[in-house]
Amino acid sequence: GDAEKGKAKSVSCQACHGAAGISQIPTYPNLAGQKELYLVAQLKAFRSQERKNMVMGPMAAGLSDEDINDLAAYYAGLNPGG
Amino acid sequence: GDAEKGKAKSVSCQACHGAAGISQIPTYPNLAGQKELYLVAQLKAFRSQERKNMVMGPMAAGLSDEDINDLAAYYAGLNPGG
Repeated sequence: GDAEKGKAKSVSCQACHGAAGISQIPTYPNLAGQKELYLVAQLKAFRSQERKNMVMGPMAAGLSDEDINDLAAYYAGLNPGG
Repeated sequence: GDAEKGKAKSVSCQACHGAAGISQIPTYPNLAGQKELYLVAQLKAFRSQERKNMVMGPMAAGLSDEDINDLAAYYAGLNPGG
């Protein structure tokens, strides 16, 4: 995916996952430096509800495959240390 | 949880998640520095199969709550950069 485009699409993610991909909320995962293909798989699972989550289901519902690839590229590219 | 005990219990996790919690397999997540309560919730979800995964289901099936808390403490405490 395209990390630059992903950054633009990540605005609605930042409230929970943090501006630098390090979450401020103890039950929400850090995404910075996570494996890109893992992130793609989870977003698709939330979108298809194969993986159920009250918050992420609606978040992922409107994402295209391209959005998912771009968001995954963006977060995977962030410094894991924040 | 107790990170030291968690380290001892993490032997079977290392093949996929890496000795320092950074996975060598692109579709398997890094765990190092992840949120402790998030890790607890995911291990419990795999154990109860609320979150379905062919690999993690059997892995988590035999874990006690204490094992889960110790493993989560161990991985959360690792350096996110590996």
